[in-house]
Amino acid sequence: MNTGSPQDSRLNSLNRVRVVLARPSHPGNVGAAARAMKTMGLSRLVLVSPKEDHLCAESVARAANANDVLESAVVCENLSQALEGTIFSAAMTARVRELALPMVWAREGAINLHTNSLQGEVALVFGNEKAGLSNEEVSLCSQPVRIPVNPEYSSLNLGSAVQVMCYELRMAALENDITPGPVIERALFSDIQHFHAHLEKALLASGFLNPDNPKRLIPRMQRLFDKAQLEPEEVRLLRGMLASFEKSSQKLD
Amino acid sequence: MNTGSPQDSRLNSLNRVRVVLARPSHPGNVGAAARAMKTMGLSRLVLVSPKEDHLCAESVARAANANDVLESAVVCENLSQALEGTIFSAAMTARVRELALPMVWAREGAINLHTNSLQGEVALVFGNEKAGLSNEEVSLCSQPVRIPVNPEYSSLNLGSAVQVMCYELRMAALENDITPGPVIERALFSDIQHFHAHLEKALLASGFLNPDNPKRLIPRMQRLFDKAQLEPEEVRLLRGMLASFEKSSQKLD
Repeated sequence: MNTGSPQDSRLNSLNRVRVVLARPSHPGNVGAAARAMKTMGLSRLVLVSPKEDHLCAESVARAANANDVLESAVVCENLSQALEGTIFSAAMTARVRELALPMVWAREGAINLHTNSLQGEVALVFGNEKAGLSNEEVSLCSQPVRIPVNPEYSSLNLGSAVQVMCYELRMAALENDITPGPVIERALFSDIQHFHAHLEKALLASGFLNPDNPKRLIPRMQRLFDKAQLEPEEVRLLRGMLASFEKSSQKLD
Repeated sequence: MNTGSPQDSRLNSLNRVRVVLARPSHPGNVGAAARAMKTMGLSRLVLVSPKEDHLCAESVARAANANDVLESAVVCENLSQALEGTIFSAAMTARVRELALPMVWAREGAINLHTNSLQGEVALVFGNEKAGLSNEEVSLCSQPVRIPVNPEYSSLNLGSAVQVMCYELRMAALENDITPGPVIERALFSDIQHFHAHLEKALLASGFLNPDNPKRLIPRMQRLFDKAQLEPEEVRLLRGMLASFEKSSQKLD
């Protein structure tokens, strides 16, 4: 395996990876993340509601010569906005969540990010230093990913976590430039969101979803379809199916 | 990594792996497969419509000291029968199929087989020496798996393919005795088959499936849900949803 010159075309896919930091508290960590990214050839930083200005002195100092990454960072209000236009996203998490998708280790997560970046925009999402990602944020992502750490001392710094994942992404890009089968096309984040809304409407209309006692039917259903890694054609098919079910019910009115 | 004594409890999962040979032509290959299995600690051989008696002289000769594997082999009429009671199956294939699930390389396929074998019965399915597996056979399996071979000389002997996969399975059992999250429960093959039948009935009733022009709606839908790696609870949920849609249509009559 070649270590990859800056001109190595296998590394082009890294330009389609956004590193998203959700609600970071410490500007020093944002600077460290920018530096970690640049060492591995990544450059697209997205910040969701950072607590402090990401161009403050502390952040710039920690970024060292990665100021360009900091300066071109995009600031968003929420994670949905940050994921707009992506086809795949990895949620970094150390905790097992209820109703979360099956979790994978860092290396496999990086390979999945890389494979999907061959056909579209992807995001690597980190939570707040103390609280991590919320359950709702994890549920917006395609796959929860966990970095293996010493169970007796698992306190990984945010900048270090970004470093490990960016390193694994670079390795994945250099090693996995071929896939065994055709690349599977994936639906856009926003189209999946629209399908989720349509499903909820149809389940309400059919009576399967009781608005007074919804239990966790909707999150369960959404998780089920998220596991399928829906393709654009499949989203169309599912919405067609829902429309056909809605139509046969409406004839009742 | 320890290489694994016969008493190594990490290897217990190999007892839940069936090696299925679909329509093998040459009894010598069946014997070679039995031998390959035994070298890696596997013992459960299933034969689907073998062309010749698997206990003939040629087969027994090639099995060397793995006659016990040959003698305890189970013979089935078709692949559905061979998969009865499994929760996951890998279809070995060198070809890219239409409407197939996303394909993975041998190592990842073995890890998936191993992970699923921690909670239930799994199958590793090989096709006929010349023709491989049929599209229908591949569609009965949970995941198509490909062995990386020299593209200029890709002719892998059946016994050798069994050897490579059994080796990878042993490695997976020794290396992957922990998973990053909880093990995901998977629905039984037969429950998935019943759900497929229910889906087809509901789509017919709603008019979304036109029996005079079915196109490939049903295989597409089945593939979509197969990608989700359905859990028992999800199969119940989906069948409940279908029943609720059917009920609102029936009120028309």
